Amino acid sequence: MPDLGAVLNEIAAEMAARPDRGVVADYIPELARADASAFGIAVIDGQGETYAAGDADIPFSIQSISKVFTLTLALGMVGDRLWRRVGREPSGNPFNSIVQLERERGVPRNPFINAGAIAVTDVILSGHQPSEALGEILRFLRFLGQDDTIFVDKAVAASEKRTGFRNAALANYMKSYGVIENPVDFTLGVYFHHCAVAMSCRQLAMAGNYLAHAGRNPATGLSVVSPERARRINALMLTCGHYDGSGEFAYRVGLPGKSGVGGGILAVAPGKASIAVWSPGLDPSGNSHLGRIALEMLAKRMGWSIFGTDGSSAPV
Amino acid sequence: MPDLGAVLNEIAAEMAARPDRGVVADYIPELARADASAFGIAVIDGQGETYAAGDADIPFSIQSISKVFTLTLALGMVGDRLWRRVGREPSGNPFNSIVQLERERGVPRNPFINAGAIAVTDVILSGHQPSEALGEILRFLRFLGQDDTIFVDKAVAASEKRTGFRNAALANYMKSYGVIENPVDFTLGVYFHHCAVAMSCRQLAMAGNYLAHAGRNPATGLSVVSPERARRINALMLTCGHYDGSGEFAYRVGLPGKSGVGGGILAVAPGKASIAVWSPGLDPSGNSHLGRIALEMLAKRMGWSIFGTDGSSAPV
Amino acid sequence: MPDLGAVLNEIAAEMAARPDRGVVADYIPELARADASAFGIAVIDGQGETYAAGDADIPFSIQSISKVFTLTLALGMVGDRLWRRVGREPSGNPFNSIVQLERERGVPRNPFINAGAIAVTDVILSGHQPSEALGEILRFLRFLGQDDTIFVDKAVAASEKRTGFRNAALANYMKSYGVIENPVDFTLGVYFHHCAVAMSCRQLAMAGNYLAHAGRNPATGLSVVSPERARRINALMLTCGHYDGSGEFAYRVGLPGKSGVGGGILAVAPGKASIAVWSPGLDPSGNSHLGRIALEMLAKRMGWSIFGTDGSSAPV
Amino acid sequence: MPDLGAVLNEIAAEMAARPDRGVVADYIPELARADASAFGIAVIDGQGETYAAGDADIPFSIQSISKVFTLTLALGMVGDRLWRRVGREPSGNPFNSIVQLERERGVPRNPFINAGAIAVTDVILSGHQPSEALGEILRFLRFLGQDDTIFVDKAVAASEKRTGFRNAALANYMKSYGVIENPVDFTLGVYFHHCAVAMSCRQLAMAGNYLAHAGRNPATGLSVVSPERARRINALMLTCGHYDGSGEFAYRVGLPGKSGVGGGILAVAPGKASIAVWSPGLDPSGNSHLGRIALEMLAKRMGWSIFGTDGSSAPV
Repeated sequence: MPDLGAVLNEIAAEMAARPDRGVVADYIPELARADASAFGIAVIDGQGETYAAGDADIPFSIQSISKVFTLTLALGMVGDRLWRRVGREPSGNPFNSIVQLERERGVPRNPFINAGAIAVTDVILSGHQPSEALGEILRFLRFLGQDDTIFVDKAVAASEKRTGFRNAALANYMKSYGVIENPVDFTLGVYFHHCAVAMSCRQLAMAGNYLAHAGRNPATGLSVVSPERARRINALMLTCGHYDGSGEFAYRVGLPGKSGVGGGILAVAPGKASIAVWSPGLDPSGNSHLGRIALEMLAKRMGWSIFGTDGSSAPV
Repeated sequence: MPDLGAVLNEIAAEMAARPDRGVVADYIPELARADASAFGIAVIDGQGETYAAGDADIPFSIQSISKVFTLTLALGMVGDRLWRRVGREPSGNPFNSIVQLERERGVPRNPFINAGAIAVTDVILSGHQPSEALGEILRFLRFLGQDDTIFVDKAVAASEKRTGFRNAALANYMKSYGVIENPVDFTLGVYFHHCAVAMSCRQLAMAGNYLAHAGRNPATGLSVVSPERARRINALMLTCGHYDGSGEFAYRVGLPGKSGVGGGILAVAPGKASIAVWSPGLDPSGNSHLGRIALEMLAKRMGWSIFGTDGSSAPV
Repeated sequence: MPDLGAVLNEIAAEMAARPDRGVVADYIPELARADASAFGIAVIDGQGETYAAGDADIPFSIQSISKVFTLTLALGMVGDRLWRRVGREPSGNPFNSIVQLERERGVPRNPFINAGAIAVTDVILSGHQPSEALGEILRFLRFLGQDDTIFVDKAVAASEKRTGFRNAALANYMKSYGVIENPVDFTLGVYFHHCAVAMSCRQLAMAGNYLAHAGRNPATGLSVVSPERARRINALMLTCGHYDGSGEFAYRVGLPGKSGVGGGILAVAPGKASIAVWSPGLDPSGNSHLGRIALEMLAKRMGWSIFGTDGSSAPV
Repeated sequence: MPDLGAVLNEIAAEMAARPDRGVVADYIPELARADASAFGIAVIDGQGETYAAGDADIPFSIQSISKVFTLTLALGMVGDRLWRRVGREPSGNPFNSIVQLERERGVPRNPFINAGAIAVTDVILSGHQPSEALGEILRFLRFLGQDDTIFVDKAVAASEKRTGFRNAALANYMKSYGVIENPVDFTLGVYFHHCAVAMSCRQLAMAGNYLAHAGRNPATGLSVVSPERARRINALMLTCGHYDGSGEFAYRVGLPGKSGVGGGILAVAPGKASIAVWSPGLDPSGNSHLGRIALEMLAKRMGWSIFGTDGSSAPV
């Protein structure tokens, strides 16, 4: 077994040296300002030990990674009834495509494309005031991340709202089919705010640790979801977690993961590790360019791919 | 650890009793004739021991499962150059959709939808006579399955050819973009024939065993592909192996797998088992109805999901 | 030449007797309340004489017919620069499809589908207050219709706004591509209001008379557009005026026309007549069922099809 | 009334001088060889007088213009039953799109896109030998064109067949839905051959003259179709005759017409003239660039637009 701390330091050094860094999202000034040279990684191993390298303590905008946590929350609230409003299949389209919604009468393909996450947010909102729903989500993230300093970046949320016409189109479209139940502005308001949560790699790895350990974070002893639900969320991340680059991520990295346009990726090695990586430059599918490469290296060097190991297969 | 043999017998008994059996494919008489009450399963465990229950020795038409083996063969012939002709993303469309081909200029999304498998077949054909290419594929399957009685069902192949207008449309469409290089009839001929290979669950589990063990079949000691390539084929099966039901299969079963319209499914528990199941009735996505349910039970009872276990996470 | 008055009376009598009346739009209560037995028709001939039959003086919601007049107004304001924001091709899709917008980067196919008419409305709005723009449109309609009692049905507008999520999706989608320049709510507000204008067949035939006579209403002597522009608006009505039933309308009726979901149709026999017909029941494409049939009869009996006459061709 | 002969000479002179000539189709060598500097036009007026200018007697490949004549022939054979196999709506897609076929279960949108014309050809073939059907079509064209020298260019047909994979895809796709009844190769063979017919502008104007005169060619006295059918074919040409440039052609020219990728356009001024124009360079929609411009000039100078005149409207 390679030394995890050493591996992370190697990876961080390699990443710092690479000239190819992807393209920082620039659709809002708050994201455009991100430092393309930043790179951070944090890993919690099976013993609950945290290892980190690079900019692992700098908060960044988690963006779509929040969709993993809102999915978890919504499943806790309504269980499998959630699947009446959103599917579980890869979309075969970019993250913000509206074509599929027309073909499937307003039901988004999965909870990790924008339309699906808006529908999930609508379930969480469910008749409450937006501020209450957002408070609930934030409390959940602080509980998962074990850190009360986790916060919503209001400037990011305001910018998202100001420019979020594509998401408004998706939400209104779903509303026209009754898939969105609350006022569109309320649902979008909560959505924009939870995407604007800022977390560091260290906080994010802690927050996702329950997914690596049968639904229970061994670092805290607290149970979040059942083992079966943890597996299923992992399965959804594997098939749908990286928009139209999900197949590529599975092929290269071999771990369930969810990326955000802020450059973060949360990845899970079931039974072994919770991993958060951050580098703001994106590839053409909208996923962190160096984040993906770093995870590919990490999974390979640690033998963490869920699709098999290098070695001769040991007896079960 | 539950007793695998007992688990298989339980599952076979439960499957025999279920009234819901899906719908047998009826687009050609040879498939329509299949017995909806049939159910077979075979598993090779990490020690190379084979367990079986039900109709595990009856040959059935493997249909699209052959795509896993032709992909393996083509990667062996041209390596990563294969990916110039076919993508690695889930399609978000039914298995025989042509819409995506128009949007992406004739390049199919992945090797497991029909268009993609036809493109892969074209790579294998590569200037040879169809009979030579088919001979090569059949030899490969017999080698993998360790059984020289594995055969092409000529009646199935002839029926497929006679009715395969949708596949002819896909092939001609790709040809118009230069993605198919051989004469369309040649490529389709080989494609229809390798889809018409008949194998039993026992043979199929043996043939897929290399995918469970880092590319090397421990039962024979023969190496088929590198560990990395085995992982990557598994990843493709997970994200794309069940047409537009791939997300659902990952969500429920949690194992890489490839289904065929003949009612077979090959599934892989990396490091643990190679599994073949067969029941001719299909669900609306075209995957074996009872096959999927049986695999869900098996993965759950044996704790084989690649997305995590039930138990408390053991230290790494 | 048949007697126009007699022909209209015959048609009105035939329409009153028909059992098939289409289906009244019911997405808002104000339209759902329309009387399915209503039928009205008004024609202004080349001498400026008005003929009418049936319920030709009952105001109805003109809905999409307003798109002809807003197009005329916008062309008067910005000329051919309008075509940077909207195309001139039939859409091949239902009136409220959003698929095409994704394929063509937010530019709607023509000014007569909803997306296109919203884009045209945005051009008219152009930095003004919604109330000013709406006032301008209403003044234009009263001028064209020569009747200051033409009004906006506020209850209809309010209902449209309350339920218009699909249109909000279209507008937000175009806004995301910069095709909409004003605040989405402003543009939609004006759009919903001009669709809610109520007019009678008599008023509508008068308002459209300029299109039958080289851009100049001979009944008033006032010039509205150039002869070339009148021809071009007629061409757009012919190819795009009836949503995905435009080909059918051209095939059966052979006159440029524009329908509305309130059951009205404005049609033009160039050089010969301006025609307005109204019957609230719609066919599956969203066009007045009896309105189309009445126009088919009228064009046939009067020999008005733009695609040729019955008789032997006279010398030019 | 301007002098037609003089107008044609002016137009031919203007066209000869233009530097913008479009792009000659180059998908087969026989078309690629066409002389981009060629331009011809022929018009038969209401008195049966023929006027011509430029290269009006050089035969060119009529390509898709043949679709007008095969439609006429098929309607003569099966009447309105034809519409069970093909629609009458503009497609909103390029001429060889297959997307629409998937959405509408193999039924092409109209007889003037490739898929629709293949379906029409299949109706004409209807159980006969391909050579018989082709003979029938050729006899019909020679009868319409009043010239027994009209011929099929076998080299063009052979090249079309050798490269026609996209059309083979369309035909096989329709066959999979039962829309094509004959063997695909038979239907395609006839299709490729009738598209390969060569005609001069003079022959083509004569062949289309029945459409200008209520279905009867006054130059020969022979009746081809009923007045109503002539109008309806004209309507289809107007809405669908120029692929995804049909709206633009109606908007600019204002005449029913059908273009071919060989650079020809047949246009009809109902009651006034049959027009054929030819210039091999194409615009991006696949229609003759100078052909369209010449027709726009001609219609404008002669006042032939079906959408209205320049002058003050004369009494009916």
